[in-house]
Amino acid sequence: MANRRSTKSSGASPTEEQPVRHIPVSLSQRVLRTDKPPIAQLMHQGVLNPNLISLAAGLVDQESLPTESVAAAAKLLAEKDRGRAALQYGTTNGDRRLREQIVEHLCGLEGVSPEVLGVTPDRVVIGTGSQQLLYLVGELLLDPGDIVLAGVPGYFVYMGALESLGARIMPIATDNDGIIPQAVDDMLAQLESHGELHHIKFLYDVSYFNNPTGLCLSWDRRSELIAVVQSWSQCHRICIVEDAAYRELRYDGVDLPSVFSLDSTGQSVLYAGTFSKSFSPGLKTGFLVAPPELVEPLVHQKGHHDFGSSNFNQQILADVLQSGEYRRHVAALCAIYRAKRDCMLETLAGELVGLESEVLWTRPEGGLYVWVRLPDGFATGPDSDFFAACIERGVLVVPGEYCYPSAMPAIPRHHVRLSFGVQPPDRIREGTRRFCDVVRGLLACR
Amino acid sequence: MANRRSTKSSGASPTEEQPVRHIPVSLSQRVLRTDKPPIAQLMHQGVLNPNLISLAAGLVDQESLPTESVAAAAKLLAEKDRGRAALQYGTTNGDRRLREQIVEHLCGLEGVSPEVLGVTPDRVVIGTGSQQLLYLVGELLLDPGDIVLAGVPGYFVYMGALESLGARIMPIATDNDGIIPQAVDDMLAQLESHGELHHIKFLYDVSYFNNPTGLCLSWDRRSELIAVVQSWSQCHRICIVEDAAYRELRYDGVDLPSVFSLDSTGQSVLYAGTFSKSFSPGLKTGFLVAPPELVEPLVHQKGHHDFGSSNFNQQILADVLQSGEYRRHVAALCAIYRAKRDCMLETLAGELVGLESEVLWTRPEGGLYVWVRLPDGFATGPDSDFFAACIERGVLVVPGEYCYPSAMPAIPRHHVRLSFGVQPPDRIREGTRRFCDVVRGLLACR
Repeated sequence: MANRRSTKSSGASPTEEQPVRHIPVSLSQRVLRTDKPPIAQLMHQGVLNPNLISLAAGLVDQESLPTESVAAAAKLLAEKDRGRAALQYGTTNGDRRLREQIVEHLCGLEGVSPEVLGVTPDRVVIGTGSQQLLYLVGELLLDPGDIVLAGVPGYFVYMGALESLGARIMPIATDNDGIIPQAVDDMLAQLESHGELHHIKFLYDVSYFNNPTGLCLSWDRRSELIAVVQSWSQCHRICIVEDAAYRELRYDGVDLPSVFSLDSTGQSVLYAGTFSKSFSPGLKTGFLVAPPELVEPLVHQKGHHDFGSSNFNQQILADVLQSGEYRRHVAALCAIYRAKRDCMLETLAGELVGLESEVLWTRPEGGLYVWVRLPDGFATGPDSDFFAACIERGVLVVPGEYCYPSAMPAIPRHHVRLSFGVQPPDRIREGTRRFCDVVRGLLACR
Repeated sequence: MANRRSTKSSGASPTEEQPVRHIPVSLSQRVLRTDKPPIAQLMHQGVLNPNLISLAAGLVDQESLPTESVAAAAKLLAEKDRGRAALQYGTTNGDRRLREQIVEHLCGLEGVSPEVLGVTPDRVVIGTGSQQLLYLVGELLLDPGDIVLAGVPGYFVYMGALESLGARIMPIATDNDGIIPQAVDDMLAQLESHGELHHIKFLYDVSYFNNPTGLCLSWDRRSELIAVVQSWSQCHRICIVEDAAYRELRYDGVDLPSVFSLDSTGQSVLYAGTFSKSFSPGLKTGFLVAPPELVEPLVHQKGHHDFGSSNFNQQILADVLQSGEYRRHVAALCAIYRAKRDCMLETLAGELVGLESEVLWTRPEGGLYVWVRLPDGFATGPDSDFFAACIERGVLVVPGEYCYPSAMPAIPRHHVRLSFGVQPPDRIREGTRRFCDVVRGLLACR
């Protein structure tokens, strides 16, 4: 028995038996598939250089976090029955009252009745942020080797999660109107010609103020996208996973109907929302509205994770939504972010005068990000001169290359994501100035 | 192009294009591997029969839920900086202060210093209940076809989660002293003889007041278990995942050192704890202490799920632990549960007089469960006469067969799990009486 040592006869302690030899742990393929998340490197830079102004972090505005609203809602603890119920286990799919509030809230955003939208609380699942629900959707639909279509550049955290599940992410071109339906159609035709159609499970899109570009999928394209995806759903359904995390952070213009609301079949689109961006990430509560037949398997899978997210936080959010406090908060928050966005855009315009043909950036109507395109050949990666110069100058930004699937050929390496989320206006101005200094300096050396 | 319909030329709406045909969704193997969780059926019974007394639910005592302690801790919202920090994103591995408190708390339970225990806050990961962390451990270590050893009867929710990950669960015999190390050794030898050793990733055990038996792994067996598992860890490490969910709910006797604390290598044991049973499930916060090299991959995997559990709840718990309020609460809670356990045990003893040779039950020193063994051939499953009679009589219990891996041959079907967790004493007495009525009635008919 070469694989073991004798222990039966001995009362020897484990220490004596295992003196120095290190016995390796074998990790699962799932874990081996993904590298250390790139953002961890950035955070490490932040820790090493506490004087950095981070325009990288995806955190939300600190000053406006709703301490008073949450404190008021937490008074439910003083009512014995409600307080105890909030501290007891909830249900795996989430609190009924919160799910009702979410239906009402969503219908308010869409400007239609629940009947017209075809949504009931039974179709809503509450999660630990929308991220958990997006991960669960991946678990629900994907086997290793399956395919997800995703607009690029896109949300890197979810792309990493999909890769860990063994998905192949097929990048779809985007422009100022978001993901290009014709490019989706072309990709689907190409995959079909390779016999891959049955592997395609869903298309993922951040349809409002995308991370990292800050741009929305235009109204026309929303219907077109549904039509294209449904036209290719003859063998099995290709779903659309619509991530609406930033939807309510709109500073100009009018809200667009969700892709979800435009799908009159009610079968194609899963809609993910969160209260992390619009209210408080510390409560870590998001939701998913799913086609009816997917709800039960999704809830079962969530049962494996946690049989329900924090019930206490759900009660707080149900109160905050019901009292109207949530709506008031979002309105105030949008005014704050509008000023912060303007501050970043004005600084970029002022500091990059004369470079407008070489350096392009988005002017988002909402969200938290500005996407900057530098000239071809201008590398922005973590090992670039640019990135080092930024650290030296005291500003942290996200290299654009992080926002593409890791297996994509010819990843563009000349973009940068700037966030105006967490810093106050004066720090946004100073951080953006430092970024522009570095860009100007490097462009002058070329 | 047989697989698609033409859409390019048409502006037709999705409704017109997809009139009636239902296009199936293909779910992942992961999801197809597991059935509807058995407990869902029970909960459904509870909904259908609101007058049932449920001795089935794993909920905790309602009256003692710490509304005042949580309300006091939630006052941190009134301090601007602390309040805002609590409502902002936290970190994926969890709040530093809470992790420090957990180390101190754990060392208090073990009665040793952090140095002796070899634990630092860096080895602690906070999760959405310990269930999430157990699931993450499964994701970290298991590929489909891999093997987990588990004492039976055991915790069915986690067995279901492991099965969804494609694990094969090898049942290990237990007795009144918990899992039998010799049975582990025999199983490992048998698996090796089948060339399966490399598939064995970990042994899972609820080492304190097991769900469903209420019994503890004895002191002697804790060291023996480590020795056996380490002796078979020559090719790759076989880990022990120690679930200590009920540890602090001890009503008699003295605390046992954890298996974790007895592993002087610090490499073999992952220790999962939770505040759901000892404080409040509504805050949904648990923790895992892992061997150092597993922490980083575990945190990365958690990043795919949610990049951090509720920061707000973590701040509340850190305050509650730091102030000593937690310890006071646990002491009070144990007095309550002690009375409830006694109530159940006394009712069983009183109602089953004369049947002691046919009906056996455990007398747990802690936890929430009593495990009842009925005569061989007495079926307790959801389709049994017994189960129907219980519903008819107005009591809900967990059929023992749920507590075995679904693929196990010859699953015993003559046990019942009773919980004294959620019901107040008078309902425990009445519910237990109803259960005994049914048992007596059916035994009399034999």
